[in-house]
Amino acid sequence: MIPINRTYAPVQAFVEELGRCGMRHAVTSPGSRNAPLALALAAEPRIEAHSVVDERSAGFVALGLAKLTGRPVALACTSGTAAANLMPAVVEAREARVPLVVMTADRPPELRDVGAGQAIDQIRLYGPFAKWFVEVGSHEPERSTAIHFRALACRAYDTASASRPGPVHLNFPLREPLAPIPEELDTGTWAGRDDGAPWAAIGHSQAGPDDSTVRELADAVSAARRGLLVVGTTRAPEETARAVARLAAVAGWPALAEPTSGLRCGPQAATGPVVAHYDALLACERFTGSEAPELVVRIGDTPTSKRLRALLEGSRQIVVDPDLAWHEPTRTAERLERCDPALLCGRLAERVAERRPRPDHVWLRSWLDADGLVPGLVAGAPEGFEPRIWNAVAAEAPHGSTLWVASSMPIRDIETYLPRADKPLHVLANRGANGIDGTISSAAGAALGSERRVFALVGDLALVHDLGGLLSARQLGVELTVVCVNNGGGGIFDFLPVAAAADREEYERYIATPVEVDLEAAAAMAGMPYRRVEKEAEVRAAVGSPGLVEVRTDRGTNVEMHRSLIDRLRAAISPG
Amino acid sequence: MIPINRTYAPVQAFVEELGRCGMRHAVTSPGSRNAPLALALAAEPRIEAHSVVDERSAGFVALGLAKLTGRPVALACTSGTAAANLMPAVVEAREARVPLVVMTADRPPELRDVGAGQAIDQIRLYGPFAKWFVEVGSHEPERSTAIHFRALACRAYDTASASRPGPVHLNFPLREPLAPIPEELDTGTWAGRDDGAPWAAIGHSQAGPDDSTVRELADAVSAARRGLLVVGTTRAPEETARAVARLAAVAGWPALAEPTSGLRCGPQAATGPVVAHYDALLACERFTGSEAPELVVRIGDTPTSKRLRALLEGSRQIVVDPDLAWHEPTRTAERLERCDPALLCGRLAERVAERRPRPDHVWLRSWLDADGLVPGLVAGAPEGFEPRIWNAVAAEAPHGSTLWVASSMPIRDIETYLPRADKPLHVLANRGANGIDGTISSAAGAALGSERRVFALVGDLALVHDLGGLLSARQLGVELTVVCVNNGGGGIFDFLPVAAAADREEYERYIATPVEVDLEAAAAMAGMPYRRVEKEAEVRAAVGSPGLVEVRTDRGTNVEMHRSLIDRLRAAISPG
Repeated sequence: MIPINRTYAPVQAFVEELGRCGMRHAVTSPGSRNAPLALALAAEPRIEAHSVVDERSAGFVALGLAKLTGRPVALACTSGTAAANLMPAVVEAREARVPLVVMTADRPPELRDVGAGQAIDQIRLYGPFAKWFVEVGSHEPERSTAIHFRALACRAYDTASASRPGPVHLNFPLREPLAPIPEELDTGTWAGRDDGAPWAAIGHSQAGPDDSTVRELADAVSAARRGLLVVGTTRAPEETARAVARLAAVAGWPALAEPTSGLRCGPQAATGPVVAHYDALLACERFTGSEAPELVVRIGDTPTSKRLRALLEGSRQIVVDPDLAWHEPTRTAERLERCDPALLCGRLAERVAERRPRPDHVWLRSWLDADGLVPGLVAGAPEGFEPRIWNAVAAEAPHGSTLWVASSMPIRDIETYLPRADKPLHVLANRGANGIDGTISSAAGAALGSERRVFALVGDLALVHDLGGLLSARQLGVELTVVCVNNGGGGIFDFLPVAAAADREEYERYIATPVEVDLEAAAAMAGMPYRRVEKEAEVRAAVGSPGLVEVRTDRGTNVEMHRSLIDRLRAAISPG
Repeated sequence: MIPINRTYAPVQAFVEELGRCGMRHAVTSPGSRNAPLALALAAEPRIEAHSVVDERSAGFVALGLAKLTGRPVALACTSGTAAANLMPAVVEAREARVPLVVMTADRPPELRDVGAGQAIDQIRLYGPFAKWFVEVGSHEPERSTAIHFRALACRAYDTASASRPGPVHLNFPLREPLAPIPEELDTGTWAGRDDGAPWAAIGHSQAGPDDSTVRELADAVSAARRGLLVVGTTRAPEETARAVARLAAVAGWPALAEPTSGLRCGPQAATGPVVAHYDALLACERFTGSEAPELVVRIGDTPTSKRLRALLEGSRQIVVDPDLAWHEPTRTAERLERCDPALLCGRLAERVAERRPRPDHVWLRSWLDADGLVPGLVAGAPEGFEPRIWNAVAAEAPHGSTLWVASSMPIRDIETYLPRADKPLHVLANRGANGIDGTISSAAGAALGSERRVFALVGDLALVHDLGGLLSARQLGVELTVVCVNNGGGGIFDFLPVAAAADREEYERYIATPVEVDLEAAAAMAGMPYRRVEKEAEVRAAVGSPGLVEVRTDRGTNVEMHRSLIDRLRAAISPG
């Protein structure tokens, strides 16, 4: 690198190290104070810098990119409320364990809290949501400064990505010159290692489960004739899916596959004993009554399904989580394993196979048979049943596509009704903090990191919450397919007691909150093709190319259809 | 109030007290966990509850409303990133000293940090930006609970509004029933005071300056023949304007009136020695050279003008601030008065008048005469000169209108070029943290509190940053006139060294960041009339009714026109 001036040189060294550590993407927002950050990121050849105007959207773009690629993404913004706008994405990154290197420009101490403008207290701005906070400080242009910034970058990259990944926050007080006005500086003072290596290479050894743990768990699994594997979101969905499918097969247990788990949509889904529609099945007494599982092994984050949680609450449960994040709302688990789930399940599958367990085949069969009934019922539901729409999108999405699914109804519909299929799909959702914000922006970020198509599955409230995301997608030059089920408000609330208990008018105004929004105009605003469709066949045709696809449905009718489908499933499972 | 059930009753008591304390408005966002907050606010007859879907926008709506009305506004949202989205508005409220009562719904402790969904660490979520934080707690349905919630509400209202106003944050852990399902509860247990009085009536005495302070300052003011009054944003712009105008008149000093001060646009502007165009004048040597002021009395927040700050740095300076917020970036003030500026200036005016000071009339005249030259130069500048557009809007705005001016170029243009006029206008801007975010939403909030017209003056980046604000305005049923000068990016950056120093392409992409946005479609999305105009006369006609008015300009040309106007002013002031 050629150091530009005393302000830029340390930032350039920092950014170069990020690139040497393996960073490939950064998201920057405009500003004067952060020009050194943005321009240094833009100039670093190993890093592609993407510019997004609205910092809230920028935050989610970085989150989506980091989540899809599994690598830390840098996020650079200027001082003041710009940095405060990153809060929602930083919160989600913390909860969803997504690595981010947040770089906020700040005024130096003498310009803070004196009315000098655009200066707020950025020290620990993200509170407990930042895994690590560093006030980078102001330094003389000398060798020790270069070393400080280079080592700091390596540590930031590693801290964001290692152990429990998450956002780290570095606050850069920057003084004039903020513009890249060249200054005579010694190149040697600023240089990194000769060979392009990171200043500090970081070695990682993966801790596998020890033999006694594997033995104990294999004993427990082999002894349980009626067992369940439950797989939620994990960091390595493909490896985990492979290992879990092997374990399920040898143990003779059904594997309940949350849609984001990688097990529901991929090669293992076709061959292994995978159950997709557990949420629907657990509405039937057959699966919640006398025949409780003897043991549940739960891997990754807790699925959203309330019915599944109720089942877990009454079951013997072992939870596997590489970071042991205590994702254990039932508080009844008798054992928690801080262990890589793919490694553990792989080892367990070998051991359990040696034991030749004698599972209850009727139990396994009953789950798989009942699971097999659901897709037909969904396909047979009337037009306008929202899960039919999402399933149509998933069916049309090409091999390897990403579906970014909004929290609230879309993720619940997908959890309950998306069938298993051997076509690999990346199903992603902001289920760390379960916000409906940032869905479009997250999908746009994923699109930056993917060579396949990206679909955002949203309701009208989630779309309204992230209109800026439509413009960000355009600014980033990515092509999204946004499928918006517009049911005039928050459809999820219609499923809750508040819908019946509250005064109708107040319910509509303060809870359901329909927003009058012309989605055709919203698409035009961002230069996106727009199509409005109604029937499933039209949805299938409409999602064949990028654009905004609006499907109007009726909240009330949809709730009825949900209830009626469950009634039909109950009747099919327990006739008479 | 009739208590609904054990979850609602304490919230109802809290909200009733807010109403009894004087609260008139609340802004709520949808959610299930916060249904008790939203529905209780909606049901309280003294409070008008406004529903806004996007919490970031809701935060700024509340801010705008509280800023215009000077009263605390409640802001209620659900748990998770919903609460994180309020961060930008909370930050601005802290810096701009705007009273807010932020009520976040939360899951109770047993559902936090266990993967139970939509639960994040909301304890001290807003860090140092909340003036007061309370974890409200969970309580049995008994009299002591009612007392706790009633007293808490009085304290929250008072803390938000008293001394240095700002946001307070109350976190409400809420358990089932979250729906307003009626339960048998004793009305007497929950009752407030019989007479509709607040649970705790709070007395305030206004501390005036003591006699010795007034004497000392009057001595100093009377002794300085060439003095300056500088008036920025204050909490009571009208009273302050009256008192400052009196003081300026008796002291024979020019009063440099920042546009948000209330002194530039109002009855005092026509009669008193008020200078509007100080920023332009200070580009001329005449006003920065030998004839420095002997004393400056500065009132309220520091004006934005860099040139004025440079002048202040070299001057003897007394700063008056009711909260002594250390709005003193120059660090050269020799005296700071923690005192109500209207009271102090009123008392000073009396005292100074008694002293019969002998001001330097040439000094006063030179400021006023030079100030009088600027409006003609602006009017004579070519079409497309952005300050001409803003001045045209201000000229057309009816008596008592509000102009909410975006940070970055609009507020700087207005500061430099908006002429003084006796027509009262509320000029407001988010100059606490100086963010460009939330401008449309803030204006929508102001419109809720105003019976006159409200104009939002924005550039394209500020508009793009708050597209949700357009929908919020529609949802709130307010009619805004949004005037957007679209110069394809951040025009302010073209004035900075970075524009010349950076690589052209990188400058455009990472700093100026033009966003392709179809503003006609953006207006249609929110059901707003749209007009695109070019010439000043068209602007004047277009702002006659609500809607989105787009004026395209050229960033580069605009910079040239700014420079050329200053050149002409210099020539006019110092001929030859």
